Amino acid sequence: MEKLNKIYEGKAKIIYATPDPHLIIAEFKDSATAFDGTKKATIAHKGEYNSQISVKLFELLESMGIPTHLVKPLSSRELLLKKLKMIPVEVVVRNIVAGSLARKYGKTEGEVLPKTIVEYYLKNDDLHDPMMNADHIQVFGLATPAQVSQMHQLALKVNAVLRSFFGRVGIDLVDFKLEFGVNEAGDMFLADELSPDNCRLWDSTTKEKLDKDRFRFDLGQVEEAYQEIMKRVSSKA
Amino acid sequence: MEKLNKIYEGKAKIIYATPDPHLIIAEFKDSATAFDGTKKATIAHKGEYNSQISVKLFELLESMGIPTHLVKPLSSRELLLKKLKMIPVEVVVRNIVAGSLARKYGKTEGEVLPKTIVEYYLKNDDLHDPMMNADHIQVFGLATPAQVSQMHQLALKVNAVLRSFFGRVGIDLVDFKLEFGVNEAGDMFLADELSPDNCRLWDSTTKEKLDKDRFRFDLGQVEEAYQEIMKRVSSKA
Repeated sequence: MEKLNKIYEGKAKIIYATPDPHLIIAEFKDSATAFDGTKKATIAHKGEYNSQISVKLFELLESMGIPTHLVKPLSSRELLLKKLKMIPVEVVVRNIVAGSLARKYGKTEGEVLPKTIVEYYLKNDDLHDPMMNADHIQVFGLATPAQVSQMHQLALKVNAVLRSFFGRVGIDLVDFKLEFGVNEAGDMFLADELSPDNCRLWDSTTKEKLDKDRFRFDLGQVEEAYQEIMKRVSSKA
Repeated sequence: MEKLNKIYEGKAKIIYATPDPHLIIAEFKDSATAFDGTKKATIAHKGEYNSQISVKLFELLESMGIPTHLVKPLSSRELLLKKLKMIPVEVVVRNIVAGSLARKYGKTEGEVLPKTIVEYYLKNDDLHDPMMNADHIQVFGLATPAQVSQMHQLALKVNAVLRSFFGRVGIDLVDFKLEFGVNEAGDMFLADELSPDNCRLWDSTTKEKLDKDRFRFDLGQVEEAYQEIMKRVSSKA
């Protein structure tokens, strides 16, 4: 599939049009940003790792009945994807206390939650992605109540599949961020990516962080962490 | 009913024990705070206005089948109340865009919402009352899912009653904050107060602010605004 004009360049991916109006190509970049874009760097090979980890996890989810935007990988860092109308809501799923959950509510990082928490954030860099609830999403016209309910159910199903999968490769799925989009027929698909950029992943035994927090907090061995996740994710059929 | 020892002193009220272990006395103070307590002042007679406005509105709500903690007024600024175990959740109901809704989501103040928004905040000054959803409330053990559902339903019912009442005295009920508590039997009651301290109230015609925003943003005539609300609230049976 031929790459046509650049449609959009985000912090970690470039999106290109293709000759097929229903398909796009995502090219995964090595650039990394954190803290609202104030911290920037390049993580060698990140684009390849994240692209390939995403392929593996999207294929797993598809096999479990969860529709994703993945059509097929095109190269080591390029994916052919369904073109969707994105819902500007970040759906965050949390199994273990970390990040803003610890900071905002005074909770202890590492505490396993008795029940999974699902949160919604407005995807808007200028407004710093404020937290929302289902009322805001409806009133702001971002998604219908039925779509919110569908995103919620899909997020919990993704969590069940991924938590079990990561458990089998010795990784705690701490939390992760999902984005959804709809096609012209109104069908919803899991979109964006699934990688150490938007999932907190800790070694189940050592609790070592194997995700973007190594970059955020200058923990070193950032590239090695992404590579380790790719290795473990690739180790299971 | 005799005032015994002080149980708690908050930013706007002092709570006293009484000889009856199921009852407390709230004394409404004239002191006002804003912006996480960083702005402080005294608003003459505020305690009397807020106490008397609350009595009027609690009596109205009781007459419409909404249980409140009010037993009876004892003086111009003292109320006899049921002693409850407070749920540390602030329930915010919004009909018109103002305050943090405008600020956080880039919305225009004064826009009438197509549907009422209900928000939950953790009542915790040290953490600056962060926004939560029903998952957080359950996981943090603040209330059961059934209690969250009950608070939500009561909040919408309070809104319907108060919006209609204020409409009849020429006031737009923009938004307001509720707190709930439960008695030993587990019954839920609307608690705290209902006043220009925790309700945004605009003149329906001029859109003049008649609430604590006059204090927050140095709009002048603060005492007069509280007095005007008391007059209008007292004008209807």
